[in-house]
Amino acid sequence: MREVAVIGAGSTVFGELWGKSFRSIGIEAGAKAMADAGLSGSEIDGIYFGNMSASRFINQTHTDALVADYTGMATRNVPAVRTEAGGASGAVAFRQAVMAVASGMQDVVIVGGAEKMTDMDDDSINMVMNSTTDAEWEAGMGVPLASIYAMIARRMIHEGIATREGIAACAVNSHFHGEFNPDAQFRKAIKLESVLKSGPTCDPLTVFDGAPISDGASAVILCPLEDAKKYTDKYVKVAAVSQASDTLAMTQRQSFTSFAATKVAAADAYRTAGITAADIDVAEVHDDFTVAGVMALQDLGLYKNGGEAFLDGSTRFDSGKTAVNTSGGLKAKGYPIGAAGVSQIAELYQQLTGTADKRQVRDAKYGLAQSAGGTGSAVAVSILEAI
Amino acid sequence: MREVAVIGAGSTVFGELWGKSFRSIGIEAGAKAMADAGLSGSEIDGIYFGNMSASRFINQTHTDALVADYTGMATRNVPAVRTEAGGASGAVAFRQAVMAVASGMQDVVIVGGAEKMTDMDDDSINMVMNSTTDAEWEAGMGVPLASIYAMIARRMIHEGIATREGIAACAVNSHFHGEFNPDAQFRKAIKLESVLKSGPTCDPLTVFDGAPISDGASAVILCPLEDAKKYTDKYVKVAAVSQASDTLAMTQRQSFTSFAATKVAAADAYRTAGITAADIDVAEVHDDFTVAGVMALQDLGLYKNGGEAFLDGSTRFDSGKTAVNTSGGLKAKGYPIGAAGVSQIAELYQQLTGTADKRQVRDAKYGLAQSAGGTGSAVAVSILEAI
Repeated sequence: MREVAVIGAGSTVFGELWGKSFRSIGIEAGAKAMADAGLSGSEIDGIYFGNMSASRFINQTHTDALVADYTGMATRNVPAVRTEAGGASGAVAFRQAVMAVASGMQDVVIVGGAEKMTDMDDDSINMVMNSTTDAEWEAGMGVPLASIYAMIARRMIHEGIATREGIAACAVNSHFHGEFNPDAQFRKAIKLESVLKSGPTCDPLTVFDGAPISDGASAVILCPLEDAKKYTDKYVKVAAVSQASDTLAMTQRQSFTSFAATKVAAADAYRTAGITAADIDVAEVHDDFTVAGVMALQDLGLYKNGGEAFLDGSTRFDSGKTAVNTSGGLKAKGYPIGAAGVSQIAELYQQLTGTADKRQVRDAKYGLAQSAGGTGSAVAVSILEAI
Repeated sequence: MREVAVIGAGSTVFGELWGKSFRSIGIEAGAKAMADAGLSGSEIDGIYFGNMSASRFINQTHTDALVADYTGMATRNVPAVRTEAGGASGAVAFRQAVMAVASGMQDVVIVGGAEKMTDMDDDSINMVMNSTTDAEWEAGMGVPLASIYAMIARRMIHEGIATREGIAACAVNSHFHGEFNPDAQFRKAIKLESVLKSGPTCDPLTVFDGAPISDGASAVILCPLEDAKKYTDKYVKVAAVSQASDTLAMTQRQSFTSFAATKVAAADAYRTAGITAADIDVAEVHDDFTVAGVMALQDLGLYKNGGEAFLDGSTRFDSGKTAVNTSGGLKAKGYPIGAAGVSQIAELYQQLTGTADKRQVRDAKYGLAQSAGGTGSAVAVSILEAI
């Protein structure tokens, strides 16, 4: 097994990109990543692509071929693989790509993720989002994703694992960082009161507890670690890529206040990287709902009380502790679903190469990305290491 | 890179399975494959799953987690990866699984494929099928999949590459074999005249030139070749898994009478396996439309004139030449999209282990599977070898 490096990254701005097509944002992110890595498409021999539901959002299935086509790589018949795992679609693509390079089957690969959500009306978008829960036991019974996370929040508060304020503080942390990320959908800090007093979605959660509906794309370039210097001086090592599953429906779970898949994937990733949670300098966690961000910090072992860490500012880029969601997270950077997991890797790449500008975490050595599908039904945890 | 073996296979009957759910057919195929391999779910450490559009057919996205859940493997947090590449979704899952075992990252993996199509009305099903073509340049302009294949057929006839009769004979060959496959949707031989005189879909193609709409699931089990004997005496070697892409829209192609992705993937597969097309004893090719089956034989180098080979009976299991679609192919076995590519591997496994019963090809040493997405926009070619 060869060691693998990330040698470049690129993203579009995330937001309501009504003037841009799915195709154009995919090309934009890919071209930026290739330019960043200092290589051209002719040097790439594999494409991995995370996308949740272009089939429903824009009536385009078979987006693996679309990406190969519109990046010009179909003219060289470069194989493309689309993965889908709900919100973790992009993270799973990243893991498959790392496996391909590690195994020696491919050398230089591009990992992309994209979603174009805002071409559809809001009710239909919610239908698509809810289809990542159990169609027979959850969505089909009138239980949407937001209400499941509201139940999780209630249970966490009931058991004293989190406070309402701690949960809301996850959004405050993400928006704080969003202000410093020129690619973020929301570039404006918010106050805790704004989250608490925003319109209710599913009580106790409000509009500000949920990530927005977004368009956007991200891409990163991988190659064998030993070849990285051929392309660039700006590269990081992939120290671990792990993935774990859980039941689709929450009713089958042992716990309503923890995602076992996060714990299992994290334990495996730490073991592979030869580090512990205490070594992580910067983490990108899946805060599609604030309460999921709080759970993630706890399940990853980064903070015993995730809500407190968000509340007291430990998670900010300049705290000297483990910085969390310096990109703005899903909540403020935006949540174009298929792009999310790839965008996390792109942020870690910037942080670990010292190119994160105004939100730079000092002397960051290890970065961790956690990406979840459904309600923690599939979780990918990756660890990157500065060289 | 380790060598990889297929050690078991299982499928449901393909057909209009109104009494069975997506979940139940997935479990049935997986359980049969595990029983065939002589192992239990507790020995499996990876799941790869091909599915095209459960998101639209049954409103269930995130089917990777569904499969992990309903096979009981989520209780051990076994990672699951869903791939989608239109009609090649299952074949791409197979390739990813082979890569995982070859690389040493996973040991025993199950590859499944499933689709439940008949819960939806016919017009909507066609909408989903057409979404595998280019949404902006084909489907969105009123050009459905069947009409593209009709144009291909017209061009092949115009150029003298095929005759209408040769194209129709692909269906006759598939139905001839379907009669001997207890899992096939159509178990009845048909005459050439029946294809030619059937109701037109897109002229010159008729209803009998297209594969049916189907429900069904297939699964196979993989492990390192060196470990195969621990589980079973009935195993075959994976000699090659290759994949290539092409443009999504036909308008961008060099040729209307050949799929470059098939040619490129096949050349790569033959090279990897160290053989030529002449060594292939049995092939499963993607005959979603008859004309695609004819093209496949030519692009794979199995027959110079695919239509003639179908017409003169060379492709029958008992001809002594390269047998084609002994399972009944997509046309007669049925075409539950995500299952198709996995079902091809299951058929080759039976042929190469001498367990194909009434349709057994004598002394079969090498088997080839060709699976295509869209109109050859993604093509996977796998070669299995009897041990």
